[in-house]
Amino acid sequence: MLDFALIAEAYRRLEGHHVITPLLEYDSINEIVGGRVFFKAENLQRTGSFKFRGAFNKIAALGSEQRARGVVTYSSGNHAQGVAAAARHFTIPATVVMPEQAPLLKRQNTQQLGAELVLYDRETGDRKALAEAISAETGAVIIPPYDDEMVMAGQGTIGIEIAEQLQAAGLNADFLTCPIGGGGLMAGVSTALRHLMPAMQLYCVEPIGFDDTKRSLACGQRVANEGQGTSLCDAIVTPMPGELTFPINLGNLAGGFAVDEGNVIRAIAQLFERAKLVVEPGGAVGLAALLERQLDLQGRSAVVILSGGNMDLAAFLAMNKKVE
Amino acid sequence: MLDFALIAEAYRRLEGHHVITPLLEYDSINEIVGGRVFFKAENLQRTGSFKFRGAFNKIAALGSEQRARGVVTYSSGNHAQGVAAAARHFTIPATVVMPEQAPLLKRQNTQQLGAELVLYDRETGDRKALAEAISAETGAVIIPPYDDEMVMAGQGTIGIEIAEQLQAAGLNADFLTCPIGGGGLMAGVSTALRHLMPAMQLYCVEPIGFDDTKRSLACGQRVANEGQGTSLCDAIVTPMPGELTFPINLGNLAGGFAVDEGNVIRAIAQLFERAKLVVEPGGAVGLAALLERQLDLQGRSAVVILSGGNMDLAAFLAMNKKVE
Repeated sequence: MLDFALIAEAYRRLEGHHVITPLLEYDSINEIVGGRVFFKAENLQRTGSFKFRGAFNKIAALGSEQRARGVVTYSSGNHAQGVAAAARHFTIPATVVMPEQAPLLKRQNTQQLGAELVLYDRETGDRKALAEAISAETGAVIIPPYDDEMVMAGQGTIGIEIAEQLQAAGLNADFLTCPIGGGGLMAGVSTALRHLMPAMQLYCVEPIGFDDTKRSLACGQRVANEGQGTSLCDAIVTPMPGELTFPINLGNLAGGFAVDEGNVIRAIAQLFERAKLVVEPGGAVGLAALLERQLDLQGRSAVVILSGGNMDLAAFLAMNKKVE
Repeated sequence: MLDFALIAEAYRRLEGHHVITPLLEYDSINEIVGGRVFFKAENLQRTGSFKFRGAFNKIAALGSEQRARGVVTYSSGNHAQGVAAAARHFTIPATVVMPEQAPLLKRQNTQQLGAELVLYDRETGDRKALAEAISAETGAVIIPPYDDEMVMAGQGTIGIEIAEQLQAAGLNADFLTCPIGGGGLMAGVSTALRHLMPAMQLYCVEPIGFDDTKRSLACGQRVANEGQGTSLCDAIVTPMPGELTFPINLGNLAGGFAVDEGNVIRAIAQLFERAKLVVEPGGAVGLAALLERQLDLQGRSAVVILSGGNMDLAAFLAMNKKVE
């Protein structure tokens, strides 16, 4: 069962191997949203997203004999890089099942980290079945992207750091907004923060059309995305909430927000010009929700998790060209 | 006289008011430069550059009666924002003499921070004379951009943090590369590091054509830039090394490098894609020197100070359009 003790244990495993990412505040962004915002900059994490934490914790917790057989995973890119970097740390082989449609930078980085890529077509292939076949053949351990307690516990270490960093600065936060895909980050972080800062109200954020978690939270059970097609926010588009993550998030969250993609692009621009941070679309939705005033921040404060920054320069330029 | 005690005192003054910027390492950048690089991310400092430190220290150290008369400065933009933010903290008026040619973002930010702008033409005007006239009329204290001990001491606090962060991580660094304009940052940082980590070899970096400090260090006396016109690296183009800063840098530095502007643009792209950081041209020259292999990093390590990140999104897009 995912609980605070499991997250605290993950934090001890990660020590010295991950980046304790800074919690950053900007006067000019506070003025725009009308309250104080503290950004947890997980785009500065190893491999450019929070995913390194969960992958490292899972692999570090395996028995050494089991670990030696290698690992296999399926991911649109950020989890892939996290697994590849963690596998490299333990000098074990890693195989990643990745959609052909994944951003180029994520594919290149995963290969540069020494993982073997198995590409499939997102429209027609079944990534989980592909990974299971590889595992059956090679004995490699599957590292799921979110529906796994050790993975969730690793992501939850962000919650411990947020609480420690707020306390060290003598600060408190009324709200937290965080991107959600399968729900592993949110399940881990919410479990840590319900324990450490129970008064903080926690919200997950998705793009409009892919707000399966928001709608699932509203009706109390897992419902799938109705929208087809692709989203700018590739990192957080999943068909439906995770089997293990959803009950945890249902218990811990105050609710979910769906944001307009145009406001995601505006959030990325604000983070570029004011925060000096490169944040990918899926990582910037938490700020987009505040730009849309989905929370009343007047006289209050919010932590915003910036979950990743893996965006090609070419993709960034193309995205801004569209806006011009 | 600028010495370590003055910098340690500045550090106590800044405590709780500035960002202790992170020291960040990226596997993928290490692979490119062939050694370990630790980035001191001063682009994440309040107002987007290191300048806040020196301005705050200078203003905090004034007597309260003197301070109440307000402050005046001259700056192409980063020092302007630092002074404006520090003046706002003490709720005193600030006037900034700024070239009409300064980047739009820097002008806007300075005004948003409550400072009054006095624009002049960089080609024909004398910014120092303008500031002195304002000071004579209003009694405002001049906050020089670099030729001032309290300003240098404030910038030097970066050196204390670098030493503390390296030591906390059990690390050492053989080299440091740092952008140089008037020399205040380098004078402060080098004074701190000669005291705390005397074995580290310190290098300043400028763009080709504006390498007044490199040439001055080589001949042992202050010589002016020969090149006219403008540089992409607006933040670090000064006519010649500072009167007070140069003797300090002459005593402390191992030398200077001049880098090609094309490599500055490449450094900015690497910092965007791999470090997830927005760094302005003048702030990225330290990495450009390593991309040019001006130091042999094989089996060795370097601290690179990223001094600022104030770049309009529009300017960034235009810069990359030129490269395409």
